[in-house]
Amino acid sequence: MIKAGILGGSGYGGSELLRILLFHPEVELTLVTANEHAGKRIDAVHPNLAKLTDLKFNTMPDPGDLDGLDCVFLALPHGQAMEIAPSLPRSVKTIDLSGDFRLTDAVVFKQFYGREHTAMQTQREFVYGLTEVNRNQIKEATHIANPGCFATALELGLFPLVASGLVKGKVIADMKTGSSGSGAKAAANTHHPKRANSFYAYKTFAHQHQPEVEQLLGSVNSEWSSECNLIFQVHSIPVVRGIFASIYVTPTKSITPDEVGDLFRGFYGNEFFIRLVDGSPDINWVKNTNFVDIGWAAHDDTVIVFVALDNLVKGAAGQAVQNMNLMFGIEEREGLVLPGSNP
Amino acid sequence: MIKAGILGGSGYGGSELLRILLFHPEVELTLVTANEHAGKRIDAVHPNLAKLTDLKFNTMPDPGDLDGLDCVFLALPHGQAMEIAPSLPRSVKTIDLSGDFRLTDAVVFKQFYGREHTAMQTQREFVYGLTEVNRNQIKEATHIANPGCFATALELGLFPLVASGLVKGKVIADMKTGSSGSGAKAAANTHHPKRANSFYAYKTFAHQHQPEVEQLLGSVNSEWSSECNLIFQVHSIPVVRGIFASIYVTPTKSITPDEVGDLFRGFYGNEFFIRLVDGSPDINWVKNTNFVDIGWAAHDDTVIVFVALDNLVKGAAGQAVQNMNLMFGIEEREGLVLPGSNP
Amino acid sequence: MIKAGILGGSGYGGSELLRILLFHPEVELTLVTANEHAGKRIDAVHPNLAKLTDLKFNTMPDPGDLDGLDCVFLALPHGQAMEIAPSLPRSVKTIDLSGDFRLTDAVVFKQFYGREHTAMQTQREFVYGLTEVNRNQIKEATHIANPGCFATALELGLFPLVASGLVKGKVIADMKTGSSGSGAKAAANTHHPKRANSFYAYKTFAHQHQPEVEQLLGSVNSEWSSECNLIFQVHSIPVVRGIFASIYVTPTKSITPDEVGDLFRGFYGNEFFIRLVDGSPDINWVKNTNFVDIGWAAHDDTVIVFVALDNLVKGAAGQAVQNMNLMFGIEEREGLVLPGSNP
Amino acid sequence: MIKAGILGGSGYGGSELLRILLFHPEVELTLVTANEHAGKRIDAVHPNLAKLTDLKFNTMPDPGDLDGLDCVFLALPHGQAMEIAPSLPRSVKTIDLSGDFRLTDAVVFKQFYGREHTAMQTQREFVYGLTEVNRNQIKEATHIANPGCFATALELGLFPLVASGLVKGKVIADMKTGSSGSGAKAAANTHHPKRANSFYAYKTFAHQHQPEVEQLLGSVNSEWSSECNLIFQVHSIPVVRGIFASIYVTPTKSITPDEVGDLFRGFYGNEFFIRLVDGSPDINWVKNTNFVDIGWAAHDDTVIVFVALDNLVKGAAGQAVQNMNLMFGIEEREGLVLPGSNP
Repeated sequence: MIKAGILGGSGYGGSELLRILLFHPEVELTLVTANEHAGKRIDAVHPNLAKLTDLKFNTMPDPGDLDGLDCVFLALPHGQAMEIAPSLPRSVKTIDLSGDFRLTDAVVFKQFYGREHTAMQTQREFVYGLTEVNRNQIKEATHIANPGCFATALELGLFPLVASGLVKGKVIADMKTGSSGSGAKAAANTHHPKRANSFYAYKTFAHQHQPEVEQLLGSVNSEWSSECNLIFQVHSIPVVRGIFASIYVTPTKSITPDEVGDLFRGFYGNEFFIRLVDGSPDINWVKNTNFVDIGWAAHDDTVIVFVALDNLVKGAAGQAVQNMNLMFGIEEREGLVLPGSNP
Repeated sequence: MIKAGILGGSGYGGSELLRILLFHPEVELTLVTANEHAGKRIDAVHPNLAKLTDLKFNTMPDPGDLDGLDCVFLALPHGQAMEIAPSLPRSVKTIDLSGDFRLTDAVVFKQFYGREHTAMQTQREFVYGLTEVNRNQIKEATHIANPGCFATALELGLFPLVASGLVKGKVIADMKTGSSGSGAKAAANTHHPKRANSFYAYKTFAHQHQPEVEQLLGSVNSEWSSECNLIFQVHSIPVVRGIFASIYVTPTKSITPDEVGDLFRGFYGNEFFIRLVDGSPDINWVKNTNFVDIGWAAHDDTVIVFVALDNLVKGAAGQAVQNMNLMFGIEEREGLVLPGSNP
Repeated sequence: MIKAGILGGSGYGGSELLRILLFHPEVELTLVTANEHAGKRIDAVHPNLAKLTDLKFNTMPDPGDLDGLDCVFLALPHGQAMEIAPSLPRSVKTIDLSGDFRLTDAVVFKQFYGREHTAMQTQREFVYGLTEVNRNQIKEATHIANPGCFATALELGLFPLVASGLVKGKVIADMKTGSSGSGAKAAANTHHPKRANSFYAYKTFAHQHQPEVEQLLGSVNSEWSSECNLIFQVHSIPVVRGIFASIYVTPTKSITPDEVGDLFRGFYGNEFFIRLVDGSPDINWVKNTNFVDIGWAAHDDTVIVFVALDNLVKGAAGQAVQNMNLMFGIEEREGLVLPGSNP
Repeated sequence: MIKAGILGGSGYGGSELLRILLFHPEVELTLVTANEHAGKRIDAVHPNLAKLTDLKFNTMPDPGDLDGLDCVFLALPHGQAMEIAPSLPRSVKTIDLSGDFRLTDAVVFKQFYGREHTAMQTQREFVYGLTEVNRNQIKEATHIANPGCFATALELGLFPLVASGLVKGKVIADMKTGSSGSGAKAAANTHHPKRANSFYAYKTFAHQHQPEVEQLLGSVNSEWSSECNLIFQVHSIPVVRGIFASIYVTPTKSITPDEVGDLFRGFYGNEFFIRLVDGSPDINWVKNTNFVDIGWAAHDDTVIVFVALDNLVKGAAGQAVQNMNLMFGIEEREGLVLPGSNP
């Protein structure tokens, strides 16, 4: 059994880690922290878990005292992981759900996250946890920087095309997310009377997932950064869960819809968590699951790839556990066969 | 032209007053306050009003300096109206949308609002602004305590039955409201990821609109308080606008559905803003309007009355303007023929 | 392994049975019918199940040919189960999710369902499947009439009070349901542009679950039918999943909130799927699960019980599988520990 | 007074025409048809209009008999307008809300609408009713082909850039619509249990508004068709009303955000119904109104234009009345100052 801990269990990332790890047959959850709720039962904050756990929230311990754990998930607000991670015992495998350790370039980090990075030396130990692309490195890793929700969708949508050298020039990524992406704290942009009838764009030319995507795709194809130009625009959908990506590519050579299909089947045909769909995917069919549904179209000099996933599962907690499974040599889908529902 | 002011123009009550008063042919809006937005254009806070007004928010002036106004609407948080109202010039007609001046009994006020009432002498000048019931008093009034949203629905649903002496014993009022009833400030219970899939009850046996309803119905029929017992339970609907009341009455004598219909037509047949519907009303058909839709059913010893209205219009700003029209001798529906839409 | 079949797998009842049974460790699903989709893969109709099953829909076989099955679930439109059930082999345990076999009185059936009952002899073999109340009979049963979604909520909310002789006179049950209760076929009342902003009442004094509730409560306390009077009113919430019941009772003797709590804990303290909550439950916390959350309040001569459940799980497919587990001597919660999510 | 008629008054286009025309000071509505509801009161189909009209639906008269009308709005399903329009008296000004008369090329029409055009001769009398662009022609027109909802958003977003010769190469238009765009008839894609949690793409490379946009932009700049390539992709938002367009352009020369702003202010600064916003618009602020809100961003070689409008008002009935006002020499905004609401 893997002795696991969650640092930051009161947010939505922590909530979804709990939903998965409490039922994972190879995991014993021995620590869940939430400073402002310390001492409270977990189901007082997450009533969905009543009858499913008697655990209580702890205060954050001294990181150095966590050596009894085999694995720790950091589900903390951006900026806190980089304070803690350097002090964690090296024996504890670490999976960080925040953006703190995804970027290898401190200058880019500061530009997009608005703060100095204080733990770049530790950053170098982190492997970027896009499971289907970095599987082999993840198996060997001790530290995982779990991808962002938007980034996961966009990277998985582009990977087969980029890896095959089919992408050049401008790529338009029109991204949309549900409200849970804003986290568990009430805020003006998630106030129900406003959000329920809204659709709007935000963070134009400035979303922090953009450099993460460029870095990953650059690692896949070294010509990416010199030859491609990613336009990454996010929008808000008035729904709770789900990311939808519409990705517009001008391929380097003419390609038919069938050829795009063959390409995606070649890369993803054996991936359990990637479902290739006819036409467009729909966030409705991936909600609450670790699946990524991908569809595509091609016409003249344009390929469009559509990606749908649940921002809190494949876009956060689910992919984190998928990575944990790999790191510990467990069957990759263990604990993650969470069937979605209709309706 | 009525020179009117709105004290507290940044909340939803103020927002709806603006939507109505800016287009009211007999009103000139000369002052709109919002301390935290003072100096900003109104359409910076209410972008729906862009191109429709160039007004800016003011700070709250000294109440004694408002003698240039003919009419002032108080759309302030509970507790602030009773600080301001006593200092307003007597020449200014005052319409308060809060709960501060609805209750005539200071002890009851303290019990339900959790604070001492500091202006009970001023309270005595206020007329309760349930237009269809208190029309004659409203015409003569200088101060209006505008009814609560739940209270308006429940009172209009019960009035014909209570006034006719048909109600005795326990009355069950199962009330439901949309999220805008919680106001314009983001809070945990209106956080979109939570609220969008919620339905729950709250303030059991403790909602502040209950004594308001009992007081009004007692004024309509003096036997109400000794012979009736109101059970008033509110619930949250995951929709932005609307109040729906399901009111269960055991009539004092057997009554058929047709007789209930005759009763309601007798009381409300000439009321423009009350629409008597066949079967159940639906909040969908009253949204954004000043209409109250009422339906009913009767069987054996039970009468059920269903009421639907928009909490921000007939339940707040709309009724306030309806009262202003009466106070100034204007046609009652002036500025308030706001057609709803399908869908 | 239990060889199980689902007759009627394309609706929401069938869909949820699939979500549960495909992962039930003691069940082998060998037949799923849907005449209009016969030959198609199940995941063509339920894309949420892609990668989770390769099964295809069959046409409805001759009922007499189903003797290879150990258990059959009927998830058919009302009226079809009574045509099929009499011909099913006696060796096949039968669980009907429709209303066809819930009522023991053919006259009442006709009154509420609007058709003659054609299989009352077969009806006598059916046990009413309200698991927590009829557990012992269910263990011995060969035929289960699975309760309606509204009925489950109302019966579980009233059972401790009725069984204790605490209920007399009029009981008001103000019931609310999400749109999935209307089934998988598009219809005017579930057209998104209308439904998304609606709340309304329907089937006043005429809902078919009312006699089902009265029959069950009469079986629990023989004085129910002579001494009590159930007013059962259903409403539509603009949400996909969830039933919420607000039940108003005048107890036969004064009772405190704590005493109500003791009563509910006495009846339900050991029930895994019933969670007793402080204050009001919320449909948000039971969605996608087999849990029933129950809260209560008491004041003077009124007790209010609040019940929340998922209409498609505890209100349909989940309870059906819970009953199957009992009938086959399996641990009752097997396959049904479906954790809900936050958000 | 303009004697106006609506052919097809039971759908959402007709419903919104009614909401506007019943209150238009220069219009007398003398005929509203809806064959399947003939003889019924209009408010029986549109309960939002109760107390606001006593009109009833008529059957469709012989078009030749409509010479008592000054103006007729065709709000019929696609394909019916081209059957009727040729027979309408030449004295009746005609505004068609369908797609029947927007395209000047019968071959393109057939390709995108899937049927032969049977009235191309009549088509030549139609002016394309994009008010802000074709105002002068509209003033002289007798027949208006009212633009599609998506087309209006996209055309108004691109017009200043295209007219200024700033657009070359591929233009990506990522379009999103609420569910009311699918019309008033219930269908699988608008079934609430499905739609409420959905977001998906549809009609890839095949939406019928694409040629309409290309034709309009070609009329504005003759180099459009040879030098530009429009990729037009529509998606469904789980909201009732609203179109949101994200338009990605590679400008022919480097341009700053301020220069884009100057350009839009130059073209639209005097347009009452176009509001230029800072950052992104939001469908929440245009709902129920005739406003179009437009925002933009520019960086390196990319300009993004965001457009929000209400698909049923500026995208249909509102623009139709705006055109009627021009055709009859009335103030353009008459009847159309419909303030939106917050929330």
